[in-house]
Amino acid sequence: MTELKNDRFLRALLREPVDVTPVWMMRQAGRYLPEYRATRAKAGSFLDLCKNPELACEVTIQPLDRYPLDAAILFSDILTIPDAMGLGLFFETGEGPRFERPVRTLTDIDRLGVPDIEDELGYVTEAVRVIRRELDGRVPLIGFSGSPWTLATYMVEGGSSKDFAKVKGLMFDEPAAMHKLLGVVADTVTAYLNAQIAAGAQAVMIFDTWGGALTPRDYQAFSLDYMARIVAGLKREAEGRRVPVILFTKGGSNWLERMAGAGADALGLDWTIDIGEARRRVGERVALQGNMDPCILYASPPRIREEVADILAAWGEGPGHVFNLGHGIHPHIDPENVGEFVRAVHELSAPYHH
Amino acid sequence: MTELKNDRFLRALLREPVDVTPVWMMRQAGRYLPEYRATRAKAGSFLDLCKNPELACEVTIQPLDRYPLDAAILFSDILTIPDAMGLGLFFETGEGPRFERPVRTLTDIDRLGVPDIEDELGYVTEAVRVIRRELDGRVPLIGFSGSPWTLATYMVEGGSSKDFAKVKGLMFDEPAAMHKLLGVVADTVTAYLNAQIAAGAQAVMIFDTWGGALTPRDYQAFSLDYMARIVAGLKREAEGRRVPVILFTKGGSNWLERMAGAGADALGLDWTIDIGEARRRVGERVALQGNMDPCILYASPPRIREEVADILAAWGEGPGHVFNLGHGIHPHIDPENVGEFVRAVHELSAPYHH
Repeated sequence: MTELKNDRFLRALLREPVDVTPVWMMRQAGRYLPEYRATRAKAGSFLDLCKNPELACEVTIQPLDRYPLDAAILFSDILTIPDAMGLGLFFETGEGPRFERPVRTLTDIDRLGVPDIEDELGYVTEAVRVIRRELDGRVPLIGFSGSPWTLATYMVEGGSSKDFAKVKGLMFDEPAAMHKLLGVVADTVTAYLNAQIAAGAQAVMIFDTWGGALTPRDYQAFSLDYMARIVAGLKREAEGRRVPVILFTKGGSNWLERMAGAGADALGLDWTIDIGEARRRVGERVALQGNMDPCILYASPPRIREEVADILAAWGEGPGHVFNLGHGIHPHIDPENVGEFVRAVHELSAPYHH
Repeated sequence: MTELKNDRFLRALLREPVDVTPVWMMRQAGRYLPEYRATRAKAGSFLDLCKNPELACEVTIQPLDRYPLDAAILFSDILTIPDAMGLGLFFETGEGPRFERPVRTLTDIDRLGVPDIEDELGYVTEAVRVIRRELDGRVPLIGFSGSPWTLATYMVEGGSSKDFAKVKGLMFDEPAAMHKLLGVVADTVTAYLNAQIAAGAQAVMIFDTWGGALTPRDYQAFSLDYMARIVAGLKREAEGRRVPVILFTKGGSNWLERMAGAGADALGLDWTIDIGEARRRVGERVALQGNMDPCILYASPPRIREEVADILAAWGEGPGHVFNLGHGIHPHIDPENVGEFVRAVHELSAPYHH
């Protein structure tokens, strides 16, 4: 493998010194970029794009050609896993994701098994290989998966949900069935992330988009415990380097201390917590990634710069911070503003690293 | 005025001893009740129902006729205020609320003024008077309003929003304009709640549904400070009794300590925090209202009872707890389950009060 030319993202995740604070954006390969929209149009549907390793590689690299970002993230979707488990993912125009065969009963759950990753998700590992080749050591490549709880919400609801009525009904009334479902999903996520690591992912991130919809007790039992089990099952070293793991629960700032004990190297933060306070709460246990409100990117470049400065000041000195948005970038952001954001992180963070 | 036959809700909000923990539900006059759906059909639209004091009274009292709830809450909508300010509220079938004339520019904001409450919102104060007469002292009546920040999100976005792009763009780039908007809304909310109190509301609640979408810094400046200003301007006594004020920010458990200092008597909690932990954090400063996950009501009656027991145990002994859901009751809940919930709160809380 080619030597990594920019490893400040990996170093920051391991709380090692860096020259400037590394920065990337969740959903950086996305609709705000005209070149993404062009490739997407060429691919056909969103799912066609996910399943085409060459085109997935193309959109993964597009933001790196525009901005000096410090990491690439595999272009894919968290719902590839339930699709590979036989639920039949599809997207209706103007609607969110849907499943042809949602999981509702214990019989449905009993029927699920851990799919063969190369057979069912080979297009993902192939995309990882193609992207690594094309990146040629520019920056590290992040692999990712949804968390078992988050995936289960889609699997049981049959798509997106506002109130999680069905999945929480199952969780409250049939906890054993819910644990069985989460167990098989967790085993699949573990195999899936390990396959991404084997294919060349240099860090992995688990997205727990809906963990924040749970009570603290249910979050522990139905989301965090399964993420900890996945982390414990991951190959944490590849190509002679540690493969850092990042956990991100949107709306999870209430229970950061517990997340810090789950075995991951870093936690992602949304913008509902001051990053200085988060740092004090987790101490030396993990690095932190975040946490600018994505809506700041609607503002003017000077305002964006000011916000970056505020977050850098809240973190202060010392390693362990990866700059990011607190959630994915929105589709209607002006790409010029993103340029100002990335530039501001590198320029304004330099004085904090010496 | 008739003497109040059941004042345990008001007593709990003031942290005074009670015989059992009082309980009510946000959105208790709602679509889960067939009798509500019947009245709503008779009224015409949702807005027609809000604007008809006799029918608003009918739906306000319906849940009390089914369940031994300890408070009634005025049937209305938080968007009556922007409607009264001239924005032209309407509802499209299958869609959320919309405004004909959203507020986008400084000129739009300059044009806004505090409306005359009796002229523009007389149907609300009239509903309060009718409900008080019909309640005849059974339980106290809660008046309410949306928070300035929450109302501003609808006013600027022109309706519901997922990402608050426009209102946050205004906040970040034109903070002075945003403060001007929030100021006139806060003055309107103050006058509106005082008019509800003058008409007979015995407690008032401010719903900050979208405060949790802000950073801690922006929450303070653009939401909490305006709620504190409203609280400071309220008539806190009527009919020889204190009129307690409840603040509720959904997603606000990160900054409970600061909310506890805003001058309210009680804070509403969503379900993302353990109520025992919340109690330790706010100390003796405020009562707490909450905080069962509304999805528990999809579960079986024994499971509902178990959850009630858990929350009562987490609170423990001592006054200052009003039982509620952590958000409004969902439309598809079985009314039988609500009966079990209310019964469980009264039965299982008795041993904690002696």
